[in-house]
Amino acid sequence: MPIIQQRHEIPVEVSARHAHLSREHLDILFGPGYELAKLKDLSQIGQFAAAETITIEGLRGKFEKVRLIGPCREHTQVEISRTDARLLGIEPPVRLSGDISSSSGARLSGPQGTVELGQGVIIAQRHLHLDEATAEQWSLKSGDVAAVEIGGERGAIFNNVAVRVHNDFMPAFHIDTDEANAAGITANNNHGYVIAVSGN
Amino acid sequence: MPIIQQRHEIPVEVSARHAHLSREHLDILFGPGYELAKLKDLSQIGQFAAAETITIEGLRGKFEKVRLIGPCREHTQVEISRTDARLLGIEPPVRLSGDISSSSGARLSGPQGTVELGQGVIIAQRHLHLDEATAEQWSLKSGDVAAVEIGGERGAIFNNVAVRVHNDFMPAFHIDTDEANAAGITANNNHGYVIAVSGN
Repeated sequence: MPIIQQRHEIPVEVSARHAHLSREHLDILFGPGYELAKLKDLSQIGQFAAAETITIEGLRGKFEKVRLIGPCREHTQVEISRTDARLLGIEPPVRLSGDISSSSGARLSGPQGTVELGQGVIIAQRHLHLDEATAEQWSLKSGDVAAVEIGGERGAIFNNVAVRVHNDFMPAFHIDTDEANAAGITANNNHGYVIAVSGN
Repeated sequence: MPIIQQRHEIPVEVSARHAHLSREHLDILFGPGYELAKLKDLSQIGQFAAAETITIEGLRGKFEKVRLIGPCREHTQVEISRTDARLLGIEPPVRLSGDISSSSGARLSGPQGTVELGQGVIIAQRHLHLDEATAEQWSLKSGDVAAVEIGGERGAIFNNVAVRVHNDFMPAFHIDTDEANAAGITANNNHGYVIAVSGN
């Protein structure tokens, strides 16, 4: 288990609460065959913020105007912060995207219908997106665990950062709004440094 | 500037949004001569959560039922998280308690009146409370800057932790709700380790 010490600058991208819908759930919430309108492309190739939003409701509270991210995925997935979770009254696990087994449920509402989602709500685990060339240059691979340092007055080192490598990825450190606020991430302080990696 | 390496377990205490009122502002919000009712003692000697709450209002939003902390202080001070600040529509600085010069304003409302607070709203800088004996044992003094590590699945190291020493203090690492949520602090994961200190 080699420990590789390095320090590479990486852009920080902050994910606010959002949802990815399955084709089936998009049909229910917006009507059969509905197609999402692209509001803007995201940094990860093919992903886009949709013009459409939905309402997410928990036992205690709800959020309206939660942004949808397209295109549709195989399974519906809602990503929120722990702050959001407390307001909704649910306790979702911290998970990597796609790992929704036994995660939290919520009620999703759109203009044409409602879905009682049994599972799919997660708090996204902080992670690095890397293309294959950058990953090779930095001696990283999918499944590695990294640490990322943020500078400034609320400076911090985030441990347990999951490394995800794919040729469609752009290098970016993805965190949620709690993590961004805790570390003072702003428009003027939006980069970090990958400072250590434990290989397998 | 000696660097002292150490690792000392410390309880983590999470401060939700709250307000300390001056005698003058307590009179305005609750009536002349009003005395706060103690709901429960806090870990710091003499400080207590009051039964009373107030409303804090910014340009964009407001929070009702914001807890008051007694006793009265010389100056009114409101401590919120950056998440709270965004919802209120204000941009308070990150400051140590008591350092409110040129901080943010807000409207405070109680059952008997309203105060247009010109300054006093801050985001509390993460800090360590230490009694003098513990501080001496750990070779720390007021004004030192420490780092505190949190374990677990959202493990992180918080840098720029201000050290405050006073004989009335109980050892504790104080963070806000954003920092607690970002690091996965819960009832079962509520301690950290002071891991490094840069002396002056």
